Amino acid sequence: MFYHVKDLQYNAKPACPDPVYAKKLQEVLGGQYGEITVMMQYLFQGFNCRADAKYRDLLFDIGTEEIAHVEMLATLIARLLDNAPAKDQEQLVNSDPAIAAIMGGMNPQHAIVSGLGALPADSVGYPWNARYTIASGNLLADFRANLNAESQGRLQVSRLYELTDDPGVRDTLSFLIARDNAHQNQWIAAIRELESEEGDIIVPTTFPRNLQKEEVAYDFYNTSQGNESSHGPWAQGLAPDHRYYFRYVENPVPYGPRPYLIPAPYYLFNTPPMLRA
Amino acid sequence: MFYHVKDLQYNAKPACPDPVYAKKLQEVLGGQYGEITVMMQYLFQGFNCRADAKYRDLLFDIGTEEIAHVEMLATLIARLLDNAPAKDQEQLVNSDPAIAAIMGGMNPQHAIVSGLGALPADSVGYPWNARYTIASGNLLADFRANLNAESQGRLQVSRLYELTDDPGVRDTLSFLIARDNAHQNQWIAAIRELESEEGDIIVPTTFPRNLQKEEVAYDFYNTSQGNESSHGPWAQGLAPDHRYYFRYVENPVPYGPRPYLIPAPYYLFNTPPMLRA
Amino acid sequence: MFYHVKDLQYNAKPACPDPVYAKKLQEVLGGQYGEITVMMQYLFQGFNCRADAKYRDLLFDIGTEEIAHVEMLATLIARLLDNAPAKDQEQLVNSDPAIAAIMGGMNPQHAIVSGLGALPADSVGYPWNARYTIASGNLLADFRANLNAESQGRLQVSRLYELTDDPGVRDTLSFLIARDNAHQNQWIAAIRELESEEGDIIVPTTFPRNLQKEEVAYDFYNTSQGNESSHGPWAQGLAPDHRYYFRYVENPVPYGPRPYLIPAPYYLFNTPPMLRA
Amino acid sequence: MFYHVKDLQYNAKPACPDPVYAKKLQEVLGGQYGEITVMMQYLFQGFNCRADAKYRDLLFDIGTEEIAHVEMLATLIARLLDNAPAKDQEQLVNSDPAIAAIMGGMNPQHAIVSGLGALPADSVGYPWNARYTIASGNLLADFRANLNAESQGRLQVSRLYELTDDPGVRDTLSFLIARDNAHQNQWIAAIRELESEEGDIIVPTTFPRNLQKEEVAYDFYNTSQGNESSHGPWAQGLAPDHRYYFRYVENPVPYGPRPYLIPAPYYLFNTPPMLRA
Amino acid sequence: MFYHVKDLQYNAKPACPDPVYAKKLQEVLGGQYGEITVMMQYLFQGFNCRADAKYRDLLFDIGTEEIAHVEMLATLIARLLDNAPAKDQEQLVNSDPAIAAIMGGMNPQHAIVSGLGALPADSVGYPWNARYTIASGNLLADFRANLNAESQGRLQVSRLYELTDDPGVRDTLSFLIARDNAHQNQWIAAIRELESEEGDIIVPTTFPRNLQKEEVAYDFYNTSQGNESSHGPWAQGLAPDHRYYFRYVENPVPYGPRPYLIPAPYYLFNTPPMLRA
Amino acid sequence: MFYHVKDLQYNAKPACPDPVYAKKLQEVLGGQYGEITVMMQYLFQGFNCRADAKYRDLLFDIGTEEIAHVEMLATLIARLLDNAPAKDQEQLVNSDPAIAAIMGGMNPQHAIVSGLGALPADSVGYPWNARYTIASGNLLADFRANLNAESQGRLQVSRLYELTDDPGVRDTLSFLIARDNAHQNQWIAAIRELESEEGDIIVPTTFPRNLQKEEVAYDFYNTSQGNESSHGPWAQGLAPDHRYYFRYVENPVPYGPRPYLIPAPYYLFNTPPMLRA
Repeated sequence: MFYHVKDLQYNAKPACPDPVYAKKLQEVLGGQYGEITVMMQYLFQGFNCRADAKYRDLLFDIGTEEIAHVEMLATLIARLLDNAPAKDQEQLVNSDPAIAAIMGGMNPQHAIVSGLGALPADSVGYPWNARYTIASGNLLADFRANLNAESQGRLQVSRLYELTDDPGVRDTLSFLIARDNAHQNQWIAAIRELESEEGDIIVPTTFPRNLQKEEVAYDFYNTSQGNESSHGPWAQGLAPDHRYYFRYVENPVPYGPRPYLIPAPYYLFNTPPMLRA
Repeated sequence: MFYHVKDLQYNAKPACPDPVYAKKLQEVLGGQYGEITVMMQYLFQGFNCRADAKYRDLLFDIGTEEIAHVEMLATLIARLLDNAPAKDQEQLVNSDPAIAAIMGGMNPQHAIVSGLGALPADSVGYPWNARYTIASGNLLADFRANLNAESQGRLQVSRLYELTDDPGVRDTLSFLIARDNAHQNQWIAAIRELESEEGDIIVPTTFPRNLQKEEVAYDFYNTSQGNESSHGPWAQGLAPDHRYYFRYVENPVPYGPRPYLIPAPYYLFNTPPMLRA
Repeated sequence: MFYHVKDLQYNAKPACPDPVYAKKLQEVLGGQYGEITVMMQYLFQGFNCRADAKYRDLLFDIGTEEIAHVEMLATLIARLLDNAPAKDQEQLVNSDPAIAAIMGGMNPQHAIVSGLGALPADSVGYPWNARYTIASGNLLADFRANLNAESQGRLQVSRLYELTDDPGVRDTLSFLIARDNAHQNQWIAAIRELESEEGDIIVPTTFPRNLQKEEVAYDFYNTSQGNESSHGPWAQGLAPDHRYYFRYVENPVPYGPRPYLIPAPYYLFNTPPMLRA
Repeated sequence: MFYHVKDLQYNAKPACPDPVYAKKLQEVLGGQYGEITVMMQYLFQGFNCRADAKYRDLLFDIGTEEIAHVEMLATLIARLLDNAPAKDQEQLVNSDPAIAAIMGGMNPQHAIVSGLGALPADSVGYPWNARYTIASGNLLADFRANLNAESQGRLQVSRLYELTDDPGVRDTLSFLIARDNAHQNQWIAAIRELESEEGDIIVPTTFPRNLQKEEVAYDFYNTSQGNESSHGPWAQGLAPDHRYYFRYVENPVPYGPRPYLIPAPYYLFNTPPMLRA
Repeated sequence: MFYHVKDLQYNAKPACPDPVYAKKLQEVLGGQYGEITVMMQYLFQGFNCRADAKYRDLLFDIGTEEIAHVEMLATLIARLLDNAPAKDQEQLVNSDPAIAAIMGGMNPQHAIVSGLGALPADSVGYPWNARYTIASGNLLADFRANLNAESQGRLQVSRLYELTDDPGVRDTLSFLIARDNAHQNQWIAAIRELESEEGDIIVPTTFPRNLQKEEVAYDFYNTSQGNESSHGPWAQGLAPDHRYYFRYVENPVPYGPRPYLIPAPYYLFNTPPMLRA
Repeated sequence: MFYHVKDLQYNAKPACPDPVYAKKLQEVLGGQYGEITVMMQYLFQGFNCRADAKYRDLLFDIGTEEIAHVEMLATLIARLLDNAPAKDQEQLVNSDPAIAAIMGGMNPQHAIVSGLGALPADSVGYPWNARYTIASGNLLADFRANLNAESQGRLQVSRLYELTDDPGVRDTLSFLIARDNAHQNQWIAAIRELESEEGDIIVPTTFPRNLQKEEVAYDFYNTSQGNESSHGPWAQGLAPDHRYYFRYVENPVPYGPRPYLIPAPYYLFNTPPMLRA
């Protein structure tokens, strides 16, 4: 069960409205790696957690914090939209092209649909959807998903930081960037613990090794002309799982045959078989 | 530019048709972490790569291999669908409930839409979409996305391995599981190289640290009642980036104020202001 | 069965082309509460109607009118796009920023994809989809959906009315606003009739009351700090269904236990159980 | 900011696992009118609220409760999936058609993707998306959206109640049905207050009446052959807004002309104009 | 403007309910090539038509007929769902696996969401969306889209015809198959007229030939190993547009250079440039 | 299996960066008829091909070429984005409205999400999805889908050609326009061969004619008022399949009855039956 306090986790007050920037900022609210994604991802990993209670608690701690980040960004966006599109400015459009540019650059749904409110959508207006989340039941896999989400997320917020000079907005973003710093560190720490406890780094660690085709499990196939890729630790030396050495295959060839598919039964009306004669 | 040979990278021939299993197998062809995703993800990272040529080559090597995986799985699915829905069996449905179950369990689009062909969709028939891919221009972030994809992918293929007894299908899957083993190792190796060269593990490593709110960058907020989460390396000890110690905040409180949003202008027809008096 | 006449239900002729406004106007054609939505929603409610013939007829009367609204808006949008992007203006872009702004503000698909035609999409270019419709078989529920759609729709058209000065566009919109006025009144009238005939206002009225957990059916839970919400008719006094008084629960507590999920079977390769020891 | 306690708002424990029912139950978790929808809808209405603080508090109170409903349903679904697909049963499929039916009826992603966890998707596996929410800034419109959501939601939960005999599941659903009873009453009470304070029932109440085409604002157009629809309060008598009487138009005719669209400029390569000669 | 009569264009009455078949039949109502698609496609081509009035009328004639096809299929599906899931049968599920299979094979939304009504979705429950339509403003291109839609559509209905023995359903489908026969012929006739009038068969016929790279405009590139493809009229002989002979290029080579992308500016935080040294 | 060479099939180098044009160009990379669509469509038709080997080879030849087109366009877009948004220009926005317009016209995800890389999305940022592809198993149907795709595709590239003056971009587009010329010719040639070999032009040619309702298979229904449509080869004369003459039905009437749907069972809680009395 959840409880809410009205105070924000951190400041979310721009110095000035800026509806064009509000549109861009939607990316880290409702985009693929926005706050809605991590909120939903950590909460669903928590709801579904069948592992140790400390992981469940970890997921709810960070997941619940992320609801507060959704709240902060939504508030920040709403304030960036204050009074937009300014009615008097609207009448100036024909004479003042700078205002026309602002009008053109806004997300029109911020006026028409949400009445100057944040939208659960990204910077091109595409709505958030639940295929952005992952909760597989395998925590090592999922913590890697979480590390990825925090890495992409901090990258996007950093880029947005550079796209504004507003000190209020930058203040909020500096908080989010720092929290993403914390969360990257935390998921890395959790990943290392799981790798250590499971005694392997290849997910899933419990699939029987003798059932995979071990003879190709350390090959690197040079399928793109040129072998610059041979100069990397992924192509030579001991593999990170410490079992075998990588093998660089300069000219990879097919192991399988040329496939032939039998004709479909007549009642599917595929291309009729007489054509194949 | 690309070239094709008709031979498959590896065998893709089931012992028997099994249209219900064909439906399930779609997950690792056209699902969130199916082969279409990694194919598109690595190729787009390659197309867009502005970094060292060896990374560009690495991405095209693995990305091009993944097109072959798409081909193998599509072939395997088409063969699992051979002769389905068997017309004579169809007439037996009322008398033979096992056949009825098979009919009910098929993806109907395998008959109606694709005429016994693989679909670029997942195991519930949801079409693949490009929001599954990520290519951010920051390779450390993206290689983490790739490691995540290979981890989720190998997990899903392993589960599918257990859901069939068909030796031909298991043969194909044992190959894919092994290649995902290789790719996990390879992305881990590449991640470690980048972390070492960039001298940091927090993405993006180049965002100036003095611009983030450093005082909250190592906090762990216990927002979910109970502190099982304090017993983990994410909540105490030196953070993985070796800069600070984590701080476990037992009772996190808001740093920000209660927000107040100003009324919208009259011409948006939001709830009218007299109500606020 | 349906018939078409070429005449429009009402005028749809702007005084001047305005491709930026055409983009915005798409919202009420192909958006969540645009004319395509109400057309499809009322027609599907009509097709599926298992209730009294007068409701079926009501649904087809208004649903068929909505096809005409789709036609009017599509025509209006096509005319707002006349001659856009003006080729000569295009060459002026570098010297005339007002024209650049217009080019930047257009939906590029209006030129590239539809050749100056209306799109079945909203103001950010997101395509209409059928999850916007509802036809549940319960008319009281559905008429509330219809009232909601007409309320959001009239709100959006009103906002769009303020975003233009074109007298031709405003003429069309004044017609649509008036029809939404009519439809809101009509759905309210129909809702009242159903509430009266069914003898209850809680959907579905036929679910046996003794099967719901009646002791929590009139509670208001104050889960957000602060109790401004206690000052409203939703928190105190007789409930609108006239059965009980609302109960304001100042400090709501969980009624349920802390959940514990059992480990998954080994063949799903979730996080392995030894970690839980 | 938000806080979590581990205890559930109410019981969520089925008597027995039932993976086929788990699939169906997803509808009210991740469907159009599932708990994720109302959670997101009320929270975004709250984040964006520019009206009186009591409405903001109301929205956060109910919105925060809905997060707990998401948690309960996710937990219930995870438990319905315990041990599915049962490995030993799986081997029985050829000999036992009842088991085959169960396998066929499961959502395969519950095994392959989520490892026996709930998915943020509906009963056909379609992922939740944010176009299900509405937060328009006009509370009368939005509270009608909320009443609609609670009406559809209670209807769907009631239907699901009838589709199971499991006493544990029914216990949980009886709680949710009761809470939807409460919320329907509460949104009705809030709607009535707003209608009373705004002095009108037509959204938006503040759009100037003289700007709408008043002469068609009370017409009912009989566009579908047959006039059963004339026998209803939507077609005759005083309209609910008490301004005019409805007018039933037996044979509605177009008010507008036949549209003609001018040819597109040559550089769009539409069908060339010589064809029109 | 549009008018409706209650009579169906043709019979839509199954001999018996069959909820599993109802699910499959959704494909040709709400799928990619279902009746909703052609309805919307032809109507939008009509709304946007800037060409000769006879094409506009043609589009409205067939487009308006398609609304009637939507109506027929929706009615047919609703009747196939009559009384499903049969409550008494539901209680037999544990003892009667044939009934269990039926329950498992239904689209659960037919019970939970639509209350035994048709859905605007396809046979896997994926909702119809407007990216299925095309209306480009170039009628030769669009009539080819229409011919494609009628070809795929008739193929799918033919397959569905074979999947049932119900004489009532087959009666309806025999009508739709015949109408698709008519429409294929009609679009072919219209295509031939346009090709003849425009004097070319390559869309768009008005793009200046001297602006395309004519030297590669008749090449066939053998990019897939093996040259079975050389034995076809697409690889040799006079091209259908009668301008040049096809040229079969046995070993196609790149015409372009190896691309190199310059580093991104620092403020985007892409992989830092020192790594490239 | 597939192989890659680093050289591009043709030049992809703009004379100057142009981030606004980059956004528009996305349409033919990731739009409904962009290069990703034809790549996936031809490859899936190839993977699933159960017909003559020459058709399989044809599909792989053209499908593999299309991967190279994806590569060229992605490269071109990345280069159009070089150095955007120019940081110094960004600071000029307030004083220089032309720059503001450029900023407003960019796809913000090109900066925030992809770090100056191409996106697998269209010109409004909507992600590519697999419902754009078709592979039905009936090659005559599918080659018509392919001809349609190449027609729409060449039309869109032609329009984009006119929207730029950049000689480098025009050079690339002149190549793509020529290749689409080749592919239209090639699919037309293949269609004619299949029509000839199958001895019919109505898809599917193998559905027994006596099972379709032949008496309506050559009718043209004038459902839209006005009979301009009678003046065309689709309404009179011998039908293209040479079997019958078209029949123009001036006043089409329904052949079917008025439908009546029986009430739903009580346990679905549809509108209760007493209302129908």
